[in-house]
Amino acid sequence: MNIEIINIGDELLIGQVTNTNASWIGEQLNLNGFRAFRFTVIGDKRQHILDALADAEKRADLVLLSGGIGPTKDDITKPALCEYFGTRLVFLEKAYHDIEELFARRGLKVTEINRLQAELPENCIDIPNRLGTARGMWFEKHLRGGRTVIFISMPGVPFEMKAMFTEEIIPRLKSIFKPQTIIHKTVLTQGIGESFLAKIIEEWENAIPKNISLAYLPQPGIVRLRLTASGDDPEIVGEQVENEVKKLMALIPDYFFGFDDDTLEKIIGNMLADKNLTLSTAESCTGGYIAHLITSVPGSSRYYKGSSIAYANDIKISELNISPQTLEQFGAVSGEVVKEMASGSRKKFNSDFAIAASGIAGPTGGTAEKPVGTIWIAIASPVSVNTYRFLFGDNRERNIRRASLQALNLLRKEISEYSLRIQKK
Amino acid sequence: MNIEIINIGDELLIGQVTNTNASWIGEQLNLNGFRAFRFTVIGDKRQHILDALADAEKRADLVLLSGGIGPTKDDITKPALCEYFGTRLVFLEKAYHDIEELFARRGLKVTEINRLQAELPENCIDIPNRLGTARGMWFEKHLRGGRTVIFISMPGVPFEMKAMFTEEIIPRLKSIFKPQTIIHKTVLTQGIGESFLAKIIEEWENAIPKNISLAYLPQPGIVRLRLTASGDDPEIVGEQVENEVKKLMALIPDYFFGFDDDTLEKIIGNMLADKNLTLSTAESCTGGYIAHLITSVPGSSRYYKGSSIAYANDIKISELNISPQTLEQFGAVSGEVVKEMASGSRKKFNSDFAIAASGIAGPTGGTAEKPVGTIWIAIASPVSVNTYRFLFGDNRERNIRRASLQALNLLRKEISEYSLRIQKK
Repeated sequence: MNIEIINIGDELLIGQVTNTNASWIGEQLNLNGFRAFRFTVIGDKRQHILDALADAEKRADLVLLSGGIGPTKDDITKPALCEYFGTRLVFLEKAYHDIEELFARRGLKVTEINRLQAELPENCIDIPNRLGTARGMWFEKHLRGGRTVIFISMPGVPFEMKAMFTEEIIPRLKSIFKPQTIIHKTVLTQGIGESFLAKIIEEWENAIPKNISLAYLPQPGIVRLRLTASGDDPEIVGEQVENEVKKLMALIPDYFFGFDDDTLEKIIGNMLADKNLTLSTAESCTGGYIAHLITSVPGSSRYYKGSSIAYANDIKISELNISPQTLEQFGAVSGEVVKEMASGSRKKFNSDFAIAASGIAGPTGGTAEKPVGTIWIAIASPVSVNTYRFLFGDNRERNIRRASLQALNLLRKEISEYSLRIQKK
Repeated sequence: MNIEIINIGDELLIGQVTNTNASWIGEQLNLNGFRAFRFTVIGDKRQHILDALADAEKRADLVLLSGGIGPTKDDITKPALCEYFGTRLVFLEKAYHDIEELFARRGLKVTEINRLQAELPENCIDIPNRLGTARGMWFEKHLRGGRTVIFISMPGVPFEMKAMFTEEIIPRLKSIFKPQTIIHKTVLTQGIGESFLAKIIEEWENAIPKNISLAYLPQPGIVRLRLTASGDDPEIVGEQVENEVKKLMALIPDYFFGFDDDTLEKIIGNMLADKNLTLSTAESCTGGYIAHLITSVPGSSRYYKGSSIAYANDIKISELNISPQTLEQFGAVSGEVVKEMASGSRKKFNSDFAIAASGIAGPTGGTAEKPVGTIWIAIASPVSVNTYRFLFGDNRERNIRRASLQALNLLRKEISEYSLRIQKK
């Protein structure tokens, strides 16, 4: 089955907006057992739209369009579709009713220009838009030789398009084309680069069943491993994936931290809230980014007490209670100092756990002994304070992010060990 | 002049990677007086590449390709190009020499697979790649009827492609096609939404000369206004832009903060460093994000002392020296409390300026009197403490970002006023 995606909009061609719609649709198709073979972007120009439709018709069984169906003058996809299919716009009572309701929910009356949104090509199937006025349009073109091409036009506004695609389009496509079962599971790792990870799991990767594919999805500080399995029997495919995930996890116990949409900050938040434990932080080189990650989780005030960010050395002494001797003897970027920072934070904030980080984020400020990218992290728990040294790269932004994620993952392990220990008692 | 962009890569079609290359190239073309009319994405499939080339040839004067020219087996753009142009790969000594140097800089020898990267289609002009092994390839195809189509193949790795496009491709295209002078200037605003901004500048926008266009580029908390002017005489066009920018700035003195690639955190950093002034922060609802923005600027340790992040109320009392009475009487989210937070922070960190923020980031935790999105900000300077109340939306992430940027912009104004005051003395 040949699927093509056409995105329409001048703003895409001049780079004002990145075409995230195409990659999102491509991914969703893939996650549901379909596959797109070509994306095309064109501007809001009548002839370009007609040409792109004719080109796609020659090759594709399904053409997904987005963009250009808003109520303003520059949106010309609807008249172009009418011209292409030799049809005309007709007023659709049901569409108008939905638009009225949408406006009523916001306490507004439908304006004249938005009334036009209820006019649709006579030959299309109308598809509701729960979040906006631009209706989806489903066309079927029966070609000589018996081939049928489906064209589906969707809004360009991402959240409207996504809701329509997920709720209306995908279920219809699945019921018509009955694709194979596709099961995905993403394994999340922290603290190891893509190539090193690939080496560790090489043998496993070479031995996974043919119907399972593996994708490496790296982000700064995190590598996601996505397994995609296809087959006829959902139960068998599901079991296969679970088996492979188990084998994979056994190979990378130090780096694995979660699945799918998990984040380290959410996982830690759940662990702390579950056990009624609290956390505080003491940051130097990460400059508040650890605190930001932790507090980006709704409800984090239940377990997060606060942080001291000490950028200047005198502040480290006054705020974090670092002894001037330790600072003098070992320097601010040292295991001794982060240890005192973490202990001091636990005490000051009266918290169960504390994270401390100090390092040289760069791009300058390194020495031969402590080059740019040197980061010390300490985790204080009710039973111990452990320190760790890392050497990252020379990009400030990435160093801050990697150090923060590394600190969260170390904390995750310490909380988990501590929870086991108190359970045993 | 008709330009098309073709991006090649299976990872694009399944949404594993968003096609940022096309939008970046589209923007760069636009910034240099060119314009693309179609983007196409195809997978690493021989026939699909040949088809896309043939399609583009029919319409375009210039076809820009990226992707599929790495050294691994799945990269098949090079053989497909050879097939399309009826040519063969030849070993290019100069290309090999560059690759050797690239490896030598990393202390490595060229591997067999990377030696293949020096093999290029016989009929192309070789374009150096300063940052990688994949060479650029420039083809010219002379069609019957006298039309010539230029095809340029570039790497898919964004930073390699970008360097090659900026340093090698754009200068050559400009010298061949001599586009009009294009001058851009982006005016940065904070603290006002796109539609409100549009209303304020409506009259001005309607009156700008025809050869200048305006684009609204909104980001959370910030709206950028980009003026793009074209013409024959660079001096006249430059003057026109300066004139319009002046008029625009006069309309939005409260929101304007900088130009082009400026950020609030960099501007503030420069102001503080210039005048030998220091800064500290006291954060509640923003949870370290203000500190993160400030410390994301290299060299921020020169003027930034540190922060206290107080999430729990008892920490606000102990760490920020808020009087329990104030907290009791007005609540943590109040002008009185942020005032004490800012003053306390200035004193504690011995800084010239201090920012304090407290609010309800959401999505829950609001009351009738203080709904979600209520944020109080205080700025303490050597001469005063001013407080400000804002009501943002119900999205936690956006509220944290908007509050932080708003706080930085308020600080910027206070530093600027203070600097004027001490200058006058």
